[in-house]
Amino acid sequence: MVLRFAILGAGRIGQVHARAVDAVPEARLVAVAEPFAEAANAVKKAYGCDIRDIDEIAASADVDAVAICTPTDTHADLIEQFVKAGKAVFCEKPIDLDVDRVRSCLATVNNEGGRLMLGFNRRFDPDFMALKAVIDEGRIGDVEIVTLTSRDPGPPPYDYITRSGGIFRDMTIHDFDVARWLLGEEIVSVQAAASVLTDPKIGELGDYDSANVILTTASGKQCTINNSRRATYGYDQRIEVHGSLGSVRADNLREANIEIAGGDGYTRSPLLNFFMTRYEKAYANEIAAFVKAVRDGSPMPVTGQDGLRALELAEAALKSVETGQAVRPES
Amino acid sequence: MVLRFAILGAGRIGQVHARAVDAVPEARLVAVAEPFAEAANAVKKAYGCDIRDIDEIAASADVDAVAICTPTDTHADLIEQFVKAGKAVFCEKPIDLDVDRVRSCLATVNNEGGRLMLGFNRRFDPDFMALKAVIDEGRIGDVEIVTLTSRDPGPPPYDYITRSGGIFRDMTIHDFDVARWLLGEEIVSVQAAASVLTDPKIGELGDYDSANVILTTASGKQCTINNSRRATYGYDQRIEVHGSLGSVRADNLREANIEIAGGDGYTRSPLLNFFMTRYEKAYANEIAAFVKAVRDGSPMPVTGQDGLRALELAEAALKSVETGQAVRPES
Amino acid sequence: MVLRFAILGAGRIGQVHARAVDAVPEARLVAVAEPFAEAANAVKKAYGCDIRDIDEIAASADVDAVAICTPTDTHADLIEQFVKAGKAVFCEKPIDLDVDRVRSCLATVNNEGGRLMLGFNRRFDPDFMALKAVIDEGRIGDVEIVTLTSRDPGPPPYDYITRSGGIFRDMTIHDFDVARWLLGEEIVSVQAAASVLTDPKIGELGDYDSANVILTTASGKQCTINNSRRATYGYDQRIEVHGSLGSVRADNLREANIEIAGGDGYTRSPLLNFFMTRYEKAYANEIAAFVKAVRDGSPMPVTGQDGLRALELAEAALKSVETGQAVRPES
Amino acid sequence: MVLRFAILGAGRIGQVHARAVDAVPEARLVAVAEPFAEAANAVKKAYGCDIRDIDEIAASADVDAVAICTPTDTHADLIEQFVKAGKAVFCEKPIDLDVDRVRSCLATVNNEGGRLMLGFNRRFDPDFMALKAVIDEGRIGDVEIVTLTSRDPGPPPYDYITRSGGIFRDMTIHDFDVARWLLGEEIVSVQAAASVLTDPKIGELGDYDSANVILTTASGKQCTINNSRRATYGYDQRIEVHGSLGSVRADNLREANIEIAGGDGYTRSPLLNFFMTRYEKAYANEIAAFVKAVRDGSPMPVTGQDGLRALELAEAALKSVETGQAVRPES
Repeated sequence: MVLRFAILGAGRIGQVHARAVDAVPEARLVAVAEPFAEAANAVKKAYGCDIRDIDEIAASADVDAVAICTPTDTHADLIEQFVKAGKAVFCEKPIDLDVDRVRSCLATVNNEGGRLMLGFNRRFDPDFMALKAVIDEGRIGDVEIVTLTSRDPGPPPYDYITRSGGIFRDMTIHDFDVARWLLGEEIVSVQAAASVLTDPKIGELGDYDSANVILTTASGKQCTINNSRRATYGYDQRIEVHGSLGSVRADNLREANIEIAGGDGYTRSPLLNFFMTRYEKAYANEIAAFVKAVRDGSPMPVTGQDGLRALELAEAALKSVETGQAVRPES
Repeated sequence: MVLRFAILGAGRIGQVHARAVDAVPEARLVAVAEPFAEAANAVKKAYGCDIRDIDEIAASADVDAVAICTPTDTHADLIEQFVKAGKAVFCEKPIDLDVDRVRSCLATVNNEGGRLMLGFNRRFDPDFMALKAVIDEGRIGDVEIVTLTSRDPGPPPYDYITRSGGIFRDMTIHDFDVARWLLGEEIVSVQAAASVLTDPKIGELGDYDSANVILTTASGKQCTINNSRRATYGYDQRIEVHGSLGSVRADNLREANIEIAGGDGYTRSPLLNFFMTRYEKAYANEIAAFVKAVRDGSPMPVTGQDGLRALELAEAALKSVETGQAVRPES
Repeated sequence: MVLRFAILGAGRIGQVHARAVDAVPEARLVAVAEPFAEAANAVKKAYGCDIRDIDEIAASADVDAVAICTPTDTHADLIEQFVKAGKAVFCEKPIDLDVDRVRSCLATVNNEGGRLMLGFNRRFDPDFMALKAVIDEGRIGDVEIVTLTSRDPGPPPYDYITRSGGIFRDMTIHDFDVARWLLGEEIVSVQAAASVLTDPKIGELGDYDSANVILTTASGKQCTINNSRRATYGYDQRIEVHGSLGSVRADNLREANIEIAGGDGYTRSPLLNFFMTRYEKAYANEIAAFVKAVRDGSPMPVTGQDGLRALELAEAALKSVETGQAVRPES
Repeated sequence: MVLRFAILGAGRIGQVHARAVDAVPEARLVAVAEPFAEAANAVKKAYGCDIRDIDEIAASADVDAVAICTPTDTHADLIEQFVKAGKAVFCEKPIDLDVDRVRSCLATVNNEGGRLMLGFNRRFDPDFMALKAVIDEGRIGDVEIVTLTSRDPGPPPYDYITRSGGIFRDMTIHDFDVARWLLGEEIVSVQAAASVLTDPKIGELGDYDSANVILTTASGKQCTINNSRRATYGYDQRIEVHGSLGSVRADNLREANIEIAGGDGYTRSPLLNFFMTRYEKAYANEIAAFVKAVRDGSPMPVTGQDGLRALELAEAALKSVETGQAVRPES
């Protein structure tokens, strides 16, 4: 049986997920909900689906699953609505910027026996999956130190920054999830430092643009996260995992796989510059994984609890910056 | 107006082109011709097109263009048939293994004012296109020496070898085309050496498995081609172009972009192993380029003459191996 | 005028410096002091110098400079003795493991108007110097984040660990110095985490084998240091500096500059495994820099204050591990 | 017993070998012969040796071995003189530009039972030695195709070109020797193409600046050589060997091991630009190998016959360029 999908929100990320649904043979895009007619029509035209409003979709018998791609502040409500409507739910991160709201939402999901997957796309990047497989095969022995480098090409617009929850909840949250995924243990200590180095206006808005974090697990495994909102050479996304038998690292993706040699040296292309291009395959893979889990009735590859844990780490990091202390995340 | 396509032959490469047609917004797959019902139905099911026989397609008013993906010995006849039927024709290389037959076929295309593009996919690989752009922008100055490394993971089946026309017409022909594309001048001298090193049976079948070729243009630009039918580490496809101001090279594509460090050193993944995976984007790009040229009425990016020239170079290389002499290709 | 040298201590590092002195045309090795006759004779034979005891050397009119290569607990006393004797002093790091003793020693150096250089060899590695030059030329703009990866091939002997002052004073101290050198600002906050992951015995001896540190300057520049006492793939020494206009990194040195491709992928050689081989050129360069500074009367490239600051950072890191707090280093 | 050396000729390469002799503990530089007093005195001062004239050295009882570093047209005569004088002889390549003169010289060496090593320095480069070891250990199986890239940063002075014997005898001759060393079989066929691309004046002087060569052995192993007299990015010296089980390659050496990332991409340093810097360790290693062979009475690692064979290949290449034919080298 083909999984029948509706996309809630046809903005940039909604369009990415619409294309991903279309590419999975076992899924079909049935409907899109989007207040802007132009965006809604574009999806309708590209994939031959209906335009319906959100309540209609919740009531549609021909919809098995939804992908929530609306603004962050609607996520928790929509998750609850659609879980109650009996739909499988894929939701873009985060569930909410408020930890308590996330907890109440997850309680509802739990009570309803709902199926919820959170969109931490990096777990589905082919190179990061290959790196994870190397670890799982025992080829580097026990994981000891994870090093995550995660730098954006440039800062988001100021109005986004004010709504984003700050760098830890918006940007580092991906790294917190990757850290948990790779360490294979819960984190008991968070030490963080953050600065404003690229643009004083970001500081005036109450946020940071540069941050370093040390995470430690109960058994002493460690992870460092290195964030900057500005990397002139592209979207810098690297993972290195050091273990008892060796190390493994995943390098960046480039615009082209060429190198030019001249009097000034050897030059390779800059990095892919845009998260949607950089993680194009990851977005496709995560929807395919969601479809598979729903159809098989198997555990979700990324759960609401994963989303909660990452947010708790963001809270702890912020508190560590403010107090200078190592903070134990709540959970 | 959308370009309406038929695929002739739904084997491995036919399926690749069907998918490529489906991915071009300005094109639509209308029909497939394929004697094996299972393969035909698979294409029909995947893309919602009709199954028709070849003569039906030639007579179909709702078909604007065809992609010829049938066995090599049918190519020339089908080109002639479909050009006469007024269809734009995309044909997999080669037009024919016999130079005279290629010439007569191209004469027919010419007389009919037909539109023909030959499928030299490598010109459409994103990295090779980026390399070509670097040359065209003058960043390495005048091209002086082109070095092509082109090694297959393993030899084809023996029965394919007997039908293939030999390594120069089957495998090196891609490199001959790339050499012409990058040198930007016609070749006046071909020197070639060929050996049987991987499997004596290939020699018994009258073919070679290892070859090196030097091409020289009238102005003295040179190209070396290095072929082997066996590379244990994958499908090895590299280009290096040396010019008066610098060099540019395109490196291989790997299974994953990771590196593992341990006591034995640092290990990166093997290369992509299969030509369809390695050149996945090239196949998509070449169909898109064909669609664009047909719709715009602009020159074909790869012409029948390009196919003829590459075949003439293969003939010259073979003659050079046999005589030990530098051979001037006919044209 | 040639600078006339004596080496105090002809152990492993003393021999390295003896060779370095011999290689500088403007310097000459005059004497060596070493209690083990065999080691002393080896230096005498190799470089044609005298064997004298330490007090003799202090009194020798034909000695202009000494290199102190004796055990750590003798450094401060010897610095004082030789500064008072009017010799220029090159001393292996550290001056002492006790901060107060370092301070009193430096006060003596200051009172005597002595010339003292501390052997932080990494500042003299050709690649790290090239990286520093890139920064100084402004090619990456303002320095924002420094990332230091520094992993030993394996832990030192247990008895060395007990005498070493612990990982921060013994191993990370090099990174603290490199951090100060590259950040170009004093550090105001140290956050550190440390674990025992490679060998529980190291923990029983009161030390750690794995550590991560975040340093922050007054203007918010940051540095992370990543240490492990075990890297199966060699002596892992990397620097990456992220700035407002770009980044620069220095990669590791390998046993051989070759790569082998086979069915399992592409393998490069492991890293140089031994600090004396890895930093061979750095050791030569630092002695040459000392000779130049003494002869020119120019400032020492690494001062006793640099040694003190690095030790203070080590103290702060240790305190941060113990308390979980961000610690402001004394100074 | 220490091998007592004299250097004949204290030009650029003579100074390199003087330093190499000085660095070998089992060798000592006793004398230098050099008509220019300044150069002679520089060697005398640096290494504490005598200045003697050539005939004196031939008659010196305290000289066991000589390194011939004089102009090419004196090599054969000096080899004969010093072999007859009972000295072990290290001679810079080539023995002579004339094949017959080389043969008569080698006959004399043979009749005298002389000890002669020819200075093909590339065999002693550490990376090339590591590559050769990989082959010898069987890690890439049977050698099938050797690919040599050998490009100079810029052409030599015009007056050198007129005396050099042309690109094949002067530059490619190194590659011919490396090819023989790596193929492990004698070459039976030479196909070559050569052009003037960098400077028409080179053509007016009767030489070429760009060349490609295919060598084939009796069993069908092949080698391509790619030469240019101009590489804007440095001294480009690469080897790749393709075998039945895999490939191995040695990459270039750079000015610094750093990479800079910015808006235009990632830039690594240019290559080492000067053959003496690039092959610094090779020059030291070859003299050490000569000393060892003389002292042990073991076979010379590079013989006069190796020099003859390489010259015969150069002759064959030139004839192939002139006739367009594959040429079997004499021997």
